Formats: sequence, C-alpha cells, structure tokens
Amino acid sequence: MYLSKQNNIIFCFLLCSSLFGYAQTEKFPLGNYEELTDEKAYDGIDIWSKQTDTQLSWGTTDTRYIKLNVPSIRKGLNFSAKAWKGERVNAQAVLWTKKDLSNVTVTVSDLKCGASVIPSSVIKTNFVRYVMTDELNKDGEGACGYRLNKAEWDSSLVADVLDIVKRIDVKANTVQPVWVTIWIPSGTKAGKYNGKLTVSGENTSPMTLNIDLEVLNRTLPSPKDWHFHLDLWQNPYSVVRYYQVPLWSPAHFDAMRPIMQLLANAGQKVITATIMHKPWNGQTEDPFDAMVGKTKKIDGSWVYDYTIFDQWVEFMQSVGIDRQINCYTLIPWALKFDYFDQATNRVLFVKTEPGNTLYNEYWGNFLADFAKHLQQKGWFDKTTIAMDERPLESMIETIKLIRSINPEFKISLAGHYHPEIEKELYDLCIAFGYQYPGEVKADREKAGKISTVYTCCTEARPNTFTFSPPAEAAWIGWHVMAANYDGYLRWSYNSWTIDPLRDSRFRTWAAGDCYLLYPLRRSTKYTNRSSDGGCYQPFLSACTG
Amino acid sequence: MYLSKQNNIIFCFLLCSSLFGYAQTEKFPLGNYEELTDEKAYDGIDIWSKQTDTQLSWGTTDTRYIKLNVPSIRKGLNFSAKAWKGERVNAQAVLWTKKDLSNVTVTVSDLKCGASVIPSSVIKTNFVRYVMTDELNKDGEGACGYRLNKAEWDSSLVADVLDIVKRIDVKANTVQPVWVTIWIPSGTKAGKYNGKLTVSGENTSPMTLNIDLEVLNRTLPSPKDWHFHLDLWQNPYSVVRYYQVPLWSPAHFDAMRPIMQLLANAGQKVITATIMHKPWNGQTEDPFDAMVGKTKKIDGSWVYDYTIFDQWVEFMQSVGIDRQINCYTLIPWALKFDYFDQATNRVLFVKTEPGNTLYNEYWGNFLADFAKHLQQKGWFDKTTIAMDERPLESMIETIKLIRSINPEFKISLAGHYHPEIEKELYDLCIAFGYQYPGEVKADREKAGKISTVYTCCTEARPNTFTFSPPAEAAWIGWHVMAANYDGYLRWSYNSWTIDPLRDSRFRTWAAGDCYLLYPLRRSTKYTNRSSDGGCYQPFLSACTG
Repeated sequence: MYLSKQNNIIFCFLLCSSLFGYAQTEKFPLGNYEELTDEKAYDGIDIWSKQTDTQLSWGTTDTRYIKLNVPSIRKGLNFSAKAWKGERVNAQAVLWTKKDLSNVTVTVSDLKCGASVIPSSVIKTNFVRYVMTDELNKDGEGACGYRLNKAEWDSSLVADVLDIVKRIDVKANTVQPVWVTIWIPSGTKAGKYNGKLTVSGENTSPMTLNIDLEVLNRTLPSPKDWHFHLDLWQNPYSVVRYYQVPLWSPAHFDAMRPIMQLLANAGQKVITATIMHKPWNGQTEDPFDAMVGKTKKIDGSWVYDYTIFDQWVEFMQSVGIDRQINCYTLIPWALKFDYFDQATNRVLFVKTEPGNTLYNEYWGNFLADFAKHLQQKGWFDKTTIAMDERPLESMIETIKLIRSINPEFKISLAGHYHPEIEKELYDLCIAFGYQYPGEVKADREKAGKISTVYTCCTEARPNTFTFSPPAEAAWIGWHVMAANYDGYLRWSYNSWTIDPLRDSRFRTWAAGDCYLLYPLRRSTKYTNRSSDGGCYQPFLSACTG
Repeated sequence: MYLSKQNNIIFCFLLCSSLFGYAQTEKFPLGNYEELTDEKAYDGIDIWSKQTDTQLSWGTTDTRYIKLNVPSIRKGLNFSAKAWKGERVNAQAVLWTKKDLSNVTVTVSDLKCGASVIPSSVIKTNFVRYVMTDELNKDGEGACGYRLNKAEWDSSLVADVLDIVKRIDVKANTVQPVWVTIWIPSGTKAGKYNGKLTVSGENTSPMTLNIDLEVLNRTLPSPKDWHFHLDLWQNPYSVVRYYQVPLWSPAHFDAMRPIMQLLANAGQKVITATIMHKPWNGQTEDPFDAMVGKTKKIDGSWVYDYTIFDQWVEFMQSVGIDRQINCYTLIPWALKFDYFDQATNRVLFVKTEPGNTLYNEYWGNFLADFAKHLQQKGWFDKTTIAMDERPLESMIETIKLIRSINPEFKISLAGHYHPEIEKELYDLCIAFGYQYPGEVKADREKAGKISTVYTCCTEARPNTFTFSPPAEAAWIGWHVMAANYDGYLRWSYNSWTIDPLRDSRFRTWAAGDCYLLYPLRRSTKYTNRSSDGGCYQPFLSACTG
C-alpha cells in the first residue's frame, strides 16, 4: 500500500529543483557554476584507483551519495516499481568515475508494454548537485537560534539540488547521481512497462540501466484535487532579489511561474499574502512586505490600493493554487504598522498594539474596506486573516476587532492550541507532536474547518534541512495522515539564502530551513517551464518491483 | 521725500514679529519665557544707581538698545512724523529703570486733529525682546559657512523681537524698549494729529510721551497693489515643528494664517511651492518637502497627487498672496528625486541628472501632467518652474526639457546672470552688487518679465542678520529702487531655528539668516490675528516731523 496515493499527498522536499540553463558568469541568477568545497576527509586516490574506470548503477532515493567517496552501493541494473496512473515515480541512478568525463548526457527511452507506451517526454532526469549544509544545534535537540559565525558549525557538502542542465562534465574520482522522475499520464493503460536509461559521454562508452514499471489499474487524481491541505509559504520577494527583476513586473511574474507551478504540482492549497510591512520583522534574507497600499489622507481618511494583492492572487490562481488566501498579519512580531502619509509624502509607522484605539482605527478601517474588496472579487469566503503564534491576549483582542468589523471573516492561526480561541479559527495549524484534544478534530471537520500540523526549526527530526535524511520528508507526509491531521504547513517554500544553489546555510536556523525549492538557473529564468515542473518525495521511489 | 512711498515698498525686517500670548511652561511654542544671557560686560550698579528711578523717552528705530546698559539717548518727549494715508509709521520708545517694575503696560490715545481721529485701535505697541545673535565670519567679508561650535563665535543678546504680550515685568537696571506702529487708515483726513503714549506699572507713576503725526494728502495703496516684487520664501514645515501641529492639518493652516498675513501686509507677491523632497538638501532646521505626490505604478505609469499643492496655494491666495507661484525645483542640490513606488510600498529615489533619460522620464511625465493641472486650476500663467543657481549646463538641459513639454511654461531663476539663458527666464533674480547688462533690464520690462535682486549670507552688509544695524534692512529697499530692480528676494522668511524666539544662531550662516519673522507665542497660535498683523521697516520711522 502506498500512503502517498491513499492520502493523495505529494509534497516538496529539498531534493526538488528546477534548473536547465547554462551561462558564462556567476552573477545571480547563477548560470553554470562550481560547487563549494568542504574540509572533510574523503576517499583518496588509493581507494579510487581500485575502481574500474566509470560505473553506473541504480541507487536509492533515500541516500545522499557523497560526492568524493566511492559509493557503497549494491550494484544493480534494474529499477522496478509499481505505480498508479497519474502518479510520479522517482528513482536515483549513480554514476562514478576515476577519470574525467566530458559532456555527459542522460537519455531515456519510451517505456513500452506491448503496444502501449509511456513516452520518454514524461520522464525527467536531473543531475544531482551538491550544496553546503551545516548541522543541528550542538545539543542535538533542534535547530533554532542564530548561527552568525559559520565557522562555529560543522559544514559539509551534500547532494540535494536537482540540476536540469542537459550535459555536464564529471571530474575524476567523483560521484554524479542522476535523479529520475516518471509522471505517469493518467490515461496510461495498466500493464508492465519497460525501457532503458542510457548515460553517454565523450570519453566513455554508453552505459545502460533498465526500468521496469508496473502501472496498476488505479488513478491518482491531479494535484489540485488532492484533499491534503498543503500550506508552504511563498516568498515573492526572494524571487525579485535572486533574479534581479523589478518587483511585481511582468519579468517577476515570469520568474515566479515555474516556481509556483512546481508548488501547485505538489498539491499546494494556500496563497500566502502579506498585508503589511515585514510581518515577521524581516527574519528572512528577503523580508516580506505589504501587498496592500494604505494611504492616510490629510483629512484623516484612509484609502487602500489592492493592485498588487489582486495581481498576486490572480497569478497564483492562474497556476492552480486557488483554494485559500491567508493574509498575514494583524499581529506581527514588531507592533508597528506602515502607511503612506499624504501630508509628508513619506511612509510612516503607527506603533500600537491590539486593543488600543490607534490599533483599532488602523486595522478596523482597513478590514472594513478589505471585506468589501474581497466580496467584490468573490474571494471573501476563501480568505483568512492569518496569524502565527502571538500572546493569547493579543490574539483575543485582534479576533474581537475582526469580528466587530465583519463576523464572517475567516481567521487562521499557526501556533499553539488555545482552547480559548479554537472555535474562532477556520484554519488552525498546531506544532508537530501536539494533538487536537478530545472531539475537537472531529467537531472541526464537521464544521468544515481545517486542522493541520507544522514543523519548523524546533524539530531535530523529522525535518527537511539539507542534512536531514531524505526519507524524513516522506515520513512527515505519512505522519500527517496517520495522526489524522488535514495537512501540513511549513513557513518557508522559497525564502532563499543569498546563494541558495551553492550554500543553504543561513544566519539563523539549520541549513535548509528557509527553502524547499532551489531557484532556476539563468537563461531559463523567464521561460514558462511548467511542463518541466515537478518535485517529488523520495519515498515514492521506494516501491518494490 | 519718502522712498518707501514713491516705490511702494514695505517689507519685513527681523524686527518684525507677532506675538501676543502668555503661558506657563517653556515647551514650544513658547509661552511666557526668559531670555538667554550672554557673557558681555555691561553697566554695573555704580552706573545704574546714578539714574533716577524709572525713565521713558522716545528713541530711534535705528538703534538696538542694549538690555543691561543705561541707554545713551537724548531724552525727548515728542515724536513727530509726516506720513501718507495708508502708510505705516514706526517709532521706538525706551523705558529704563533702576528698580523692579511689575505689570508694565502701554496705552495709546486716539490721535486727533480737530474733529478727525486716528483711532488708537490702529496703533500697535510691542515690548521689544532680546534674542541671542552671533557675528559675521572672522574675516568680516560675509557670513556663509558652518558654525557648528557656537563657542567659537562671539555671541550677544540683541533687541529684535517684537513681543505683543500686553503686560510685562521689567527688572531693575534693565532697558525695555517699546515699538510703536501706526497704520494710518487710508480714509484719514489730511492734517496734524496728536495724541499720547502712556506707560504705567504697579510701582511707578504713569509716564507720558507725545505723538505728533502730520497726515499728508497722498495715499499709499494697499500692499497687494504695490509694484515692488517681494519674494521671501515661506517654509510651512517650520511652522509644523514649532507649533507641534500635524502637517497640512487645519491646525497647521490656522497657525500659518497670521504669519502669512504679515507677509501679505509686507507686499509679498510669490507663493513658495516645493514640488520635490528636499530641494535644498535639508539645509534648514526643517527641510522643505514635496507638495506634490508622485506615484509610480507597477505598470510603469505615473500618477500625481496635487491635494497639498492646491491647498497650500489656495491658502496663500486667501491671505492675499496670489500674484505668482514659484515651484522648486527640477535641479536640487542633491540630484535624487523621490516617488512612492506602488510595487514596494516605499518611497524610493531616482538618481539621475538633467539631460539623462531617467531624468527626462521622471520630470517630463510630471511636467506634462502638472501643466494640465495648472490649466485646470487657472494657475498656469502665474506659475513658474523655479531654480536657484545650478551649473549652467544643467540649467540649459532642464530648460530644454521644460520647453519640450510645454513651451509656455514660465521659468524663474535666482542666481548668476547667464546671457545664455536670460531670455528663457520670466522671473530672474541676481545677486546683490550685480547689474543687468546693457538694455537687458529695459527689454525684460517691455516683455513683461521680472528682474529682481537678492541678498543672502554672502553680503556682510547690507543684511538682515539679527546683529545687522536695523537701517540696513531699510537701505536694501532704497537700493532696490535706486538701482532699478523690480523687487527683492530673500531665501528665508521663516526657516526658524530650534528656539527662534530666544536664539537666532544656526548651524550655518550668521544668526538671523534663516528667518525674518518670529513665531507667535503660545495661546494665540491658532488665532487668526490678521488684524494684528504688520511688520515694518525701521526706516519708515525716520521721518522728520
């Protein structure tokens, strides 16, 4: 039995990427690039020299093969899996060589079952690249807190990036894994399919591996029809910085399209919208900012500009993420609220807190106008005013204000379970390891409410750091369903580090905490690559033949 | 012969003020206040003790009577002057005492000529107060440059402020001048009028001075009909800070009304408008800011908000300053231009310079829209795009841009005389000491163009620093007319220092450079005091009887 199918979940793990492209310099977005190096001891020439020239074998998607060590692998030429129609199947092949290889390419044949065909066009192959990671906190209990001095942390190079460059040079005495993804068309006829994967290079003979895929007579719905409530927070501001495009320009949306298409393919349900400046006080490399303009006129009245909010929501809907809009936040970490002041022609901040007159004026005026706008757009019922954990008293005051403006507003929270406000929360997400008490989950389900679970830097495991064992990502999905949550939330789909393709370490939290997806490389950045999209859980490849 | 009348000029000198009011604390705006003290040597008890108790005499408006010295004055009980109908006549009485006086008040009788009366209601009396000043630059050649360390400059307390508090305590061994202004109603019958000024106090007998005023059979027009082109730059931002009122709020306009009414009464012709952030790079205590909002939308288009510009212009017109609107500037000292960016919800700056594409886009778009707006308001013909001295090349490029957008735009410059651009300039103001060459002035007059002169920190004299001899202010007016300029410009009507009533020194330039008018004291700040308005050249009181 395949949990992934039964529960209709597929979500992103760091081993997702994007990635065609080739370019000359190393300005962001990166084109062709060199990986970093770490200071570990790896297999020397004595060990490598005992290998035959160049070898190829199927490996497992559960292993991060080390770049400079001869892989400890039971060589196998056959990959076998069973899968549903519409399912994505992942596999990992491993190439290692004691001589330099030039222009290595990977080709895949059609998979055939009598007259039936799974065409090679639905099979993607990616060279797996290496990124710098660090480690859990020294006590091994988690990964939160500052890590400003990288030298204090044990760092190493790990296999994680799926590079879609079509040809690659492989240096002598290194490993080059190849990630394989087969997205079985839902119209495929059931049956036992087989085909071949071939690795070629200028100075090596072609090497071949077999693929045996049994397509069962069951069909996985398309991601947008999955029930699993996936909520990975998107950061459009990272995309602007990394791709050096103007914020909210057509080039920005073009750059985001393949990124958000991958997320849609993973079954994402929620659009992350930010309705104020720095809801999380700029904790990410690229702070989130207001998607709604708020102007205070000299006569004291307020006007709001929804141009950006609307374009963002409409863009996300266009890629298929259209179930819910979570708007952060009326309770940020730093209680100051921005607006454009007509008198001074400047952006000013109101410093106030929930329950205060100024607070209620600033947010009350906005909420009334926002409700009207959402109703006009037909989005009111899918929008939540979203919070993450804040002091209970503040949340109570905020909810009181929201209700006073419009009792029908949906409200969401990612945080602790508070019985005092549980009933007010349409979308409630509690931390990993906590349960909804008694009948609460069932009652919420009956009321049409959503009850999910999240992980963040707190959990040593399971987690999705770049050093986490890949299977932990898969395990999270299993756990969500086994423990009867409606879905899963993570605060960071793509809050990239400065150089995310080469270095996943950040000034806070363990490496990889900030993003589940790598950026595309240059030269493909403005291409709509939705047909190449897809990022897959490693555990999907663990099917037995 | 009275130059002031012949040329219809009356303008402000630092000895202008406002000022009723009395209050308890010393928070700005000041209520009742103590003057500062300097470290000079003044007359001691030995000298003061030789005086009779308390004395009163007419003095001259050309003298700043020293606070702690027995005045060297030829005692006189009679003040005599000739004046036109509609003219303002100034005089200065001097009170000095070797004992403390409490609750000193000044009253004036009606002035009578047979059955004709100049009512006491048109006669204002002000106690003259003392403010801290400094000095010219050490070389005595000017007053420009930084003076950050006050201790490096010789400072002293000088008579300058006209306080309109109605009763005052006068300490033993001090001088208390009294400024007297008679604004002769234009309907007054010619003739010889006389009346009395009386100084009373709790512990002194009333003392009386005579006023003999001959009203001639000629009439001075009202200030708004004077030809003298007076252009003292107004700073609304100083008013906000000093009065602690919200920018462009009704309270702000209320606070400005008496201030700008005084300026209208002085014959001001020009409204100072600022169409960008910090046209002079924030050189004043309160930087000027944009009165026009500029927003760049995410589709690259621009929208402009004229709410504040319109309110400011309409306000100034309502106090009678309605001849011209000078809009600063397309060429600021720091070449960066602000706008509100819809994408980022932030105020951003374009860094560019005249002649560049970005510059022409930023200003060209604006000018086209601005022209349309001005035409709609019926203001196009009275508006100038205003510059002060910038590199000639930049000015040429800027003028080229303006002409390309609308050839009918009026342009003004305060700066050097440049033959290359003279013809383009509707309103040209050159520095003191320079002449319009050859036929230029006459040609400009024929073409309906304005040609004026300015002083600033450059001139050691004549000037209007708080230590300048008062007669220099009068002399400037005489000079303007004698040298055939159309009027006079000064860059600072009310760019107040932090504590303008007590300390006229500033971080740059000699004391008094930044303002020609003192703020009103608290408790009257929101009163429309236009009926009390008026500030007068000392030389007007130099009329002989």
